[in-house]
Parts: sequence; C-alpha cells; structure tokens
Amino acid sequence: MTVVQKYGGSSVATTEKIARIAERVAKRAEKDKVVVVVSAMGDTTDELISMAKSLTKIPDERELDKLLATGEQVSSALMAMALHKLGVKAVSLTGGQAGVITESKAGKARIRKVESKRLKEELAKGNVVIVAGFQGITENSGWAEITTLGRGGSDTTAVALAAALNADACEIYTDVEGVYTADPRVEPAARKMKTISYEEMLELAGQGARVMHSRAVELGQIYGVDILVAHSLKDAPGTLITREDHEMNSQNAEMEIRNPVRGIAHDTDVTRITIVGVPDKPGVAAKLFKALSDAGISVDVIVQNVSVAGKTDLSFTVADEDLEKTKKIIAPIDKDIEAADVITDSVLAKVSVVGSGMKTSPGYASTMFAALAAEGINIYSITTSEIRITCLVERDKIKAAVRALHKAFELEKA
Amino acid sequence: MTVVQKYGGSSVATTEKIARIAERVAKRAEKDKVVVVVSAMGDTTDELISMAKSLTKIPDERELDKLLATGEQVSSALMAMALHKLGVKAVSLTGGQAGVITESKAGKARIRKVESKRLKEELAKGNVVIVAGFQGITENSGWAEITTLGRGGSDTTAVALAAALNADACEIYTDVEGVYTADPRVEPAARKMKTISYEEMLELAGQGARVMHSRAVELGQIYGVDILVAHSLKDAPGTLITREDHEMNSQNAEMEIRNPVRGIAHDTDVTRITIVGVPDKPGVAAKLFKALSDAGISVDVIVQNVSVAGKTDLSFTVADEDLEKTKKIIAPIDKDIEAADVITDSVLAKVSVVGSGMKTSPGYASTMFAALAAEGINIYSITTSEIRITCLVERDKIKAAVRALHKAFELEKA
Repeated sequence: MTVVQKYGGSSVATTEKIARIAERVAKRAEKDKVVVVVSAMGDTTDELISMAKSLTKIPDERELDKLLATGEQVSSALMAMALHKLGVKAVSLTGGQAGVITESKAGKARIRKVESKRLKEELAKGNVVIVAGFQGITENSGWAEITTLGRGGSDTTAVALAAALNADACEIYTDVEGVYTADPRVEPAARKMKTISYEEMLELAGQGARVMHSRAVELGQIYGVDILVAHSLKDAPGTLITREDHEMNSQNAEMEIRNPVRGIAHDTDVTRITIVGVPDKPGVAAKLFKALSDAGISVDVIVQNVSVAGKTDLSFTVADEDLEKTKKIIAPIDKDIEAADVITDSVLAKVSVVGSGMKTSPGYASTMFAALAAEGINIYSITTSEIRITCLVERDKIKAAVRALHKAFELEKA
Repeated sequence: MTVVQKYGGSSVATTEKIARIAERVAKRAEKDKVVVVVSAMGDTTDELISMAKSLTKIPDERELDKLLATGEQVSSALMAMALHKLGVKAVSLTGGQAGVITESKAGKARIRKVESKRLKEELAKGNVVIVAGFQGITENSGWAEITTLGRGGSDTTAVALAAALNADACEIYTDVEGVYTADPRVEPAARKMKTISYEEMLELAGQGARVMHSRAVELGQIYGVDILVAHSLKDAPGTLITREDHEMNSQNAEMEIRNPVRGIAHDTDVTRITIVGVPDKPGVAAKLFKALSDAGISVDVIVQNVSVAGKTDLSFTVADEDLEKTKKIIAPIDKDIEAADVITDSVLAKVSVVGSGMKTSPGYASTMFAALAAEGINIYSITTSEIRITCLVERDKIKAAVRALHKAFELEKA
C-alpha cells in the first residue's frame, strides 16, 4: 500500500529528532511505499518571520514566501540524509519538484493541482519520497514563483498528495495523540476522540483547535481522504477524521455513546475590530469584507448592531498577525464611508462549542450562556453555524470558559 | 550603466548588516541598474553542513545542495525586503529563477550558461534584482535539480551574471579592502594591490588566498569581465582584477614599480596523502586522479618519488574537507594496485610565491628555499607552475614562512 505521512515542526525540531523519525519511517518503508511530508524544524518559521519583520513591518508577501519555503527545504533534505544513513533509498523534493501547483496568492495560496508524475516515478524507483510541506509553485504563463500555503500548510500538502496518489492512508503525526474534546493543557479532563467527522473537525480547526489545518480537512472531505491524527513517537491510537456516515458505521464509533456536542475549541490569537458609525446602507459590508478576502485575511465573528439614525457599528475579528494588514486595508474604506471611529480590541478570545448533533437538537446556546454566566464570564459577541456556537469572552477568562463548557456538556464522559 | 555587486556572508551576517548594505545598494540604484548577488548570512552554510554531518558522515551531495541552497534564498529575500523598506523597487530570485544553469555535478557544479531573460525583464521594470549566489539548477532532460557551485560560488555567480548581462562593472564586496601581497592577519606589512592580473589572482586563489573564488576569476578571464574587489562598508579603493596588458597600461599600474613577485599565498586547510609502494607502470596515476576528478575533488602538490625496484611513492594534497571522500575513492584503487600503505598527513600547510614576472626571470626558487631555510623551516614537497612556486611546510610554521617570504621578496615596498 501507499501511505502519506506528515511530521510537524516539533517532531523534526532537531537533527536527533529527525533521526528518530527516520527510524519510524524506515520501518514503515519495509512494507509500504512511503511519502513523507515535513514541516520546518521547530521554530524555524517564526524565526524567519521575525527576521523579516526586523527589516520591514509588513514584508512583501512574495519575498516572505521565498524566505519561509526554505524551512521545509532544509528539513526535507535532512530527513533524506537521515534515511540514507539507515540504508533506506530516499529522495527529497521541494513543493515545486513534487508537483504542488498553487494559485498565485502569496502567503495563503491554495493548491490548484498536484502533478504527481515525478512523485510516482520516485516511488517506483523504490525511494521514500520526502516532500517539503507548506509550499508549492505557481504555474503562471510567466515565471514560476515559490508560494506558501499559510500556517499549518504541511497538513494540506499531505492530504493533497494522498488524494493525488490515491494513497491508502494519510497520517498526520504531531506532538499530540489525536483530537481532544478540548485542549488538554487547559482542561485536563479532555478526552481523545476515536473518530470525528470532517464537518466537526473543520469547525474545531476554524475556531482555534491547532491540531489540524482547516484547508487540509476540507481537502480531505472533498477527495474522501481519511486522515489519521496521531503522536509522532508514541504508538497510541490516534483520531480518524472521516465522513460522518463512515464514522457512525465504524467499529470505533459504535463503542462510543455519541454526545451531540463533540468538543470545545478556543482561540486567544484574535483581535476584534469595531468600525463605529457605519452608514446603514447596502454594499458597505460587502466592500469591506471583499477587500479583506482579496488580501487573504480570514474574518470571523462578524456582528452588526441595530441601526440608530441611519448609522450602525460593525465588528469582526481577525488573527492578531493580520491586524496591521487589516488596518491598512480598511483605512481608505473607513474614510470613504465616513466612519466615526475604528476601535481595536486585543483583550478578547473566542470559545466555541462544536458538534454535528447540535443541528437537530435545540438548547445548546442557552446551556452555553448559562455555563459562562455561572462563572461570571461576560459575553462580548456571539456567532453561530449549524453545528457551532462561538462567543467572544475576555482573554484572561478563556481557560475558565473552556473548563466550564467542557463540564456543562459532560464531555469528560465517554 | 549596469552593475553587478556581490556581498559576501560576513557583509550580510545579520538583518542589521543587511539593512546597512541595502542603503548602499539603494544609493547606487539611484543612477545605475543594479544586480545584487548575496551569499548566505554569516556562518549559515557551515551550520547547515554541520547539521547534515550530524546525521550522516558523508551526506548525499544532491541533498546537501538542496540544503545549502536555502542559505542564499534566505539572504536574498531579506535583502529585497530591506530595499522595499527604503522605498526601492526590488525582487529576489533564486539561482534557478535567475537562469543560472549548471552541469549536474552536485556540490561543485560549473555554470553552463545564464539564461538572462528574466533578469533583463526585472531590470527593465526598474527593479533592483537580488540573486541568490552560489547556486543554480540543472537543465536535465528529466527534472531540474538544485545545484551549488562550491565554496565561494557566489563570486562565480556575480561574474557569470556580469558576463551574461554585459554589465559595465562587476564588484565583489567583502570584509577585506582588496587583494594583498599576503594575508594581512599573518603579515602586517602586507600591501593592498591596485591591480592584479587574472593569472596571478588565479594562482593566489588556488593556493589559499580566500579573497576570490578561482572559478570566478577564470570566468572573468574568459569573458573579459574586470572584477573589482573592495570592502563592503568602507569607501577605500579596492583591487581591480583585469587582463595583464590592461593592468600594465592602466594609470594605477604605471604608478607602481612592478615587483616580479606579486604575492604570498598560504593554505592550512590541506592534507597530504601518500600512497606507498605504487607499481611504477603507466596508467596508475591517471586512474587515481581521474577517479578523484570525477568526484569533483581538487588535487594539488602531486609528487612522485624516484622508483626503487619497480615501486614508487605517490603523494598529493586535498582540502581537509575532501579527506573522507578521497579515502573512500582511493581505497579500492589501492587494493587493485596492491599499494603497500596509505599515509595521511594533516600537520602540513602550503605556502606559495606568485608573480607573472617570475616566468621570465630565474632565481626565485633558490631565494624562496633559502628564506625558508634561514628560518629553520623544513620543506616537505615542492611544486611549481610558470608563475608560482609552492612548498609544503609544517603547519605550525606557516606564519613564519609567510613572513619570511614576504620580506625576502621585498613585498612591503610599493
């Protein structure tokens, strides 16, 4: 069988760790064809970003992509060497060499296609193929540029390669044992799930569960790739992300009594921006959010107040790292619409309750609000999806919020 | 006019230094079209090599090239950002993006051609173009691979780009002020030369003067590119490497009274290998040195003793870093020719006297040997070229040897 394995930055943080992972890969390669996707070593990406920011506040995104892509090129070459040392045939490929073709939006490019010819050739030659995650190249009519897929993009690389190769398994190895009902560092009673549906995982990932990159789950859902999330060194069973009906039919799932709420996600890396005195007429919000979307900025928890005297307040959240760029983009629009003021708020955090059972049963919102209120936690904004409720709360109360909700929804029970 | 500037690793060792160099480049870009070639930041290349060697003693060269090429990709992207910060239009290109096409020999690939279309397009758009030095891509019928040009290869990149663009100037900026009559750290009386011929520079570089990469000088000679070597931050005039007749005609040279000996080079990074009991028959040496050449290993100071009873001893030197590889390559040949023993000697160093005037005047060898003898320095091997005499001496006496020769040939005098 063919397997795609992805190892995250903490699993390949040092050459010693790379050597250890190489031993696991070598063992697997005895029986399977193996493609290994690697992230950059440890904090490399952050270190590169901080070098760039020491030179200019908002680095050019094309240049930033070229800079960051080196991180995975380094770890992939080192992993190949570590396999050679064990006598295993291996070759490393950059994203471009592996045929990962992306759109040309720098920084958060989406994979357009995978040209898997070389990958297949290298596998056929008996090589373990190490692919630099998180990156691709554009296929412009002009010159090929190096792009990156945004934070956590190596997961996306792995799922895309698994889909292109029609691989039998896609395994994401990380420093956690799987997907938990909440972040175990915040809620010690959090339980590891045996399976979770793509939809639920998407909501959890979108709301701050760092275990998987949303785009990777989305690709898995589109191409029907089952994704196993497991620990890179332990042999403990992980969590399988799969179709909801597969999940319900699977042996594992049958042994679980299903709670309609599956997990609590939280995210402290969030800034609320409020535009005060927006004229309450059609097209204003559209103009604003289109500009942000064009710049690749994800916006969440959008709330518009009731209009008073033809004016309203519009608030939304962005990731902290996108704040400067967001301010730059909205400044001319604010001026244009004669907004009274723009307030940025970096003391809030998001907490979310997720579960696909929620869409058919009412009452989850009230349970959530009551649980937060009982802990004296104020709610600043609320948004919901079919299978999720999200509240903005004070950042310093986020841990208490997670714990209160985990308890209220009895997630510690199997 | 169009100028190619190259900045070495010590000039771009930190983001602060990159910002400072960017200011110089920005100033130059006000009047000229500028291509900037950068090396990796500071000790990056050594750090990457040591990571690779911590995984496997002899890293696969293809993987090592992919690993090392990241160093210049990082510094080039950062330099572009530093220029943006100053409001200068700039774009960084990898070696491959800049059209640097090399042969496929990993580790020490030679540039086959420069496809300068994109470079010219970017210059025409008004960009300062930053090119990652030291690297290129192969243009196989199969897949393009990342290659590197060997130590100091960024100089070669700069000269090759200058030739391809028919640039008006090629400037190599480094942490020394030019080419000296000897290493000024060893001989404080060493003088900076105003000009030097390609031939002399080649001999100096080949014998250990680190200021320029031999291949770069060779390319300059072939394509008639005058190369200025100067300090990256000081405004002191540097040394111009040019054709001997240009040099003799130039104003600068006329003001110098020419000494037939131009400089003393030394190299401590050298191991002597002696193969004992080699059968004295045709083809043995050829077989040996062809195998080493095929592996890209430079061999120097080849000495064969007088044959006794049909057997002889053959010795030669390689760079310390090539020792392991060399031993691996010669082992089967030694066995084949039934050599009695192989002795490696890492306590020696090379010292050379170079000057194109030497070929027409005799007596330099005797002056050299006498000067070394007067200091009690024993000579282990001797080789000569038309314009150079090289001796192997004990490594711990190398500084004394350089000083004795500098004095004996009166190089302190202008």
